[in-house]
Amino acid sequence: MALFLAIDAGGTSTRTILVNDAGRCLAYSKTAGGNPISSGLEVAAASIVEGVSLCLETAGLEHAAVSGVTLAMAGASTIRQTGWIEVPLGAIGVTAPVRLEHDLLATFHSGTAQLDGYVLLSGTGASAVRIEHGEVVAISDGLGWLLGDAGSGFWIGHRVVQAALAALDRRAAPTRLTELLLRDVDVEAPPDTLDLGRPAAVEAILGKLYTLRPVQLARFASLAFEADGDDAADAIVHEAAQHLVDTLAAVTRPETRGPIVLGGGILTHSHRLSQLIATARQDSDLSVVTDGVVGSAVIALRRAGVDVQPEIHAAIQASARQLRQPAPGPRR
Amino acid sequence: MALFLAIDAGGTSTRTILVNDAGRCLAYSKTAGGNPISSGLEVAAASIVEGVSLCLETAGLEHAAVSGVTLAMAGASTIRQTGWIEVPLGAIGVTAPVRLEHDLLATFHSGTAQLDGYVLLSGTGASAVRIEHGEVVAISDGLGWLLGDAGSGFWIGHRVVQAALAALDRRAAPTRLTELLLRDVDVEAPPDTLDLGRPAAVEAILGKLYTLRPVQLARFASLAFEADGDDAADAIVHEAAQHLVDTLAAVTRPETRGPIVLGGGILTHSHRLSQLIATARQDSDLSVVTDGVVGSAVIALRRAGVDVQPEIHAAIQASARQLRQPAPGPRR
Repeated sequence: MALFLAIDAGGTSTRTILVNDAGRCLAYSKTAGGNPISSGLEVAAASIVEGVSLCLETAGLEHAAVSGVTLAMAGASTIRQTGWIEVPLGAIGVTAPVRLEHDLLATFHSGTAQLDGYVLLSGTGASAVRIEHGEVVAISDGLGWLLGDAGSGFWIGHRVVQAALAALDRRAAPTRLTELLLRDVDVEAPPDTLDLGRPAAVEAILGKLYTLRPVQLARFASLAFEADGDDAADAIVHEAAQHLVDTLAAVTRPETRGPIVLGGGILTHSHRLSQLIATARQDSDLSVVTDGVVGSAVIALRRAGVDVQPEIHAAIQASARQLRQPAPGPRR
Repeated sequence: MALFLAIDAGGTSTRTILVNDAGRCLAYSKTAGGNPISSGLEVAAASIVEGVSLCLETAGLEHAAVSGVTLAMAGASTIRQTGWIEVPLGAIGVTAPVRLEHDLLATFHSGTAQLDGYVLLSGTGASAVRIEHGEVVAISDGLGWLLGDAGSGFWIGHRVVQAALAALDRRAAPTRLTELLLRDVDVEAPPDTLDLGRPAAVEAILGKLYTLRPVQLARFASLAFEADGDDAADAIVHEAAQHLVDTLAAVTRPETRGPIVLGGGILTHSHRLSQLIATARQDSDLSVVTDGVVGSAVIALRRAGVDVQPEIHAAIQASARQLRQPAPGPRR
C-alpha cells in the first residue's frame, strides 16, 4: 500500500500527515512555521523536516517507503525549485520527489471532494481563487498589507487601532475599541491627562505601536469582534465583509459552479464575518476549514492516480480529525 | 535697527528671511530640507546654515549684527537643545541665540496678526492646533502615516493606489485612477494580459510600489484631484475633507474665536479640498498659506518686544512676497 506525506506549510505553523492510498491518515504533526517566504529557506526546511520525522516516528517507520511528498504553501508559484527541501528530507531517508502546490488549492480540497469551486481566505492577508478541474485558474487580491488584502486581519486591525486612537484624540465619537486597545497594549494613563491638549494615553499608545512591524497590527483584529454591537467596530466588520464579498465576486463566473471554501485565521475564528459572507452568497454551498493539510493529502492521492471520491475524502477528513485530537490525559 | 533671522525648516525645503524690526524683509532664501527629525541633525544644520549665508550675502552683511534667530520646525517640542544649530551658525559669525518654535505656530502667524485661532495642516501628514495668546494650547492628530494623519497626502495617496489596484483586480468598478496610476509608475502592460487570472499590470505595479517607503505613497495624492469627477476619486477627496474637518473640530472650542489658517502641500495646492473645508466651516475667517516663514518672522519680532499689529504683519507679508518672486530674466 502506497504512503504519502502531505504538508501544509503556513507562516505560523506547519501541519503534516502521513496518509495511505485508501485515504487513511496514519500520523499527524504540527511544527513551527514552514513557509520559505516568511521564514527563510533554512528555517522553513527545518520545520518541515521536523514535522516529517515526527510523523514517521509515530507511524513506526524508520526508513519510510514514502511514494511522494506534497508541500502546499503560499508562494508555490514563485518558488519553483525543490532542492532546498528535497536535500534535507533525503538526509532523513525520505527520497521521494517533492511537489509544490498552491496553498489555496490545498485549502479548497480540505473542504470538498469536488473539482470546481472557490476559496475565500482572510488571515493576516486576504485573497480569493477560482478552481476548475482541480487547478487554480484565477486569483484576486492577496496584494499585501500596504496595497491590498482588503478585509484581512491586517486591514481590520489597522482600522481598529485608527478608530480607537481617533476617539481618544476627540476626532470621533467614543468607542469601546479604545478601552480594549488600552487594555491590550497595557496603557493605563487616564484619558483626561493632557499633554499639549492631547490625552497622554495617545502618546503612550503610539510609543508601543510604532515598535511593531506594520503587519503586526493584524493582532488587533480580534478587538473588532470582541466589541460586537459597538458602532465603530460593527462598521469595520461590515466593511471588511463587503471587501471580502467583492474579492470573491472578482473571481466568480456563472459557468463555474461549486462550493465556496472559507479559510484563514479571521474567517475560521469569526463566526460573524463568515455569516455576513454567507448572507451575501445565499445560493452557495459554503464551508469553513482551518487549514490545508487534508487538501494537501487529497492532491497527493490524485497526483498518484487515486480517484478521490467523496467517500475517500471523508475518510481522510475523519482520520485526520481523530489524530488531531489532543491525546487524553492520564485518568485520576 | 535690529535684524532677525526667521527660518521655517521643513522636511523638503527650508525658507529663511532676514527681517528688520519695522517688518521689512531684506533677503530671502530657499534651501534643502532642514528638519532634524526627517533629515538628521547634520544635514538639517547644513541646509539651515546655507540658507542663512545666502540671506546675509544678499543683504551685503558679512558679519551680521543679527539680534536673534527664530527656527520654526516640526518636532520643536521634542528637540529642545539648540547646540546642533548654534555651533555651526556661530562658525559663520551668527552668534545670536536660537529659539525653536512649533512649525504650526509659525504657519498660523504667516496667515494672521491675531493671537487666537486655529491651524489645519495637510501635507504628507495632517494635524490641527488651537492657538491662544499666540501659543499652541491644543493639538489633534499628527499621529503618523500608519496610525493617523487622516486626510493627509499619505492618506489620500494610499487610497488612490488601493482604489486603482482594486479596479484593475476586478474587485471594484473601473476608475480613471487606474490609468493615471499606470501612467505615473510607467507601466504599459495591457490590462487584459492575464497571469494566473490576474491582470499582469497588477504585478508590474506592485513590483514598482513595494520598492517605495510606505510614506512615499503621498506622491499619488495629486491623482485624486486630477481625476476630478470620477466616483472613486471624489469619494476619497470627500472622505479626506471630512477627516480634516473632524481633526479641526477636535481642537475647536466656542470660547476661542479667531481665524483658521490652512497649510501644508495638500491644502495649498488643492483648491477643491480647501473649498470643502470652507463649506463645512462657513462661519469662519479662512485663509491658506504656503509655509511658515512669515510667521517665523512675526514670532521673532514679538519675542523681541515688537508689537506686531496688522500693518507690520502686512509689511512682512508684502516684502517677503516681493523677494520670493523669481528674478526677471535678461531682456531680449
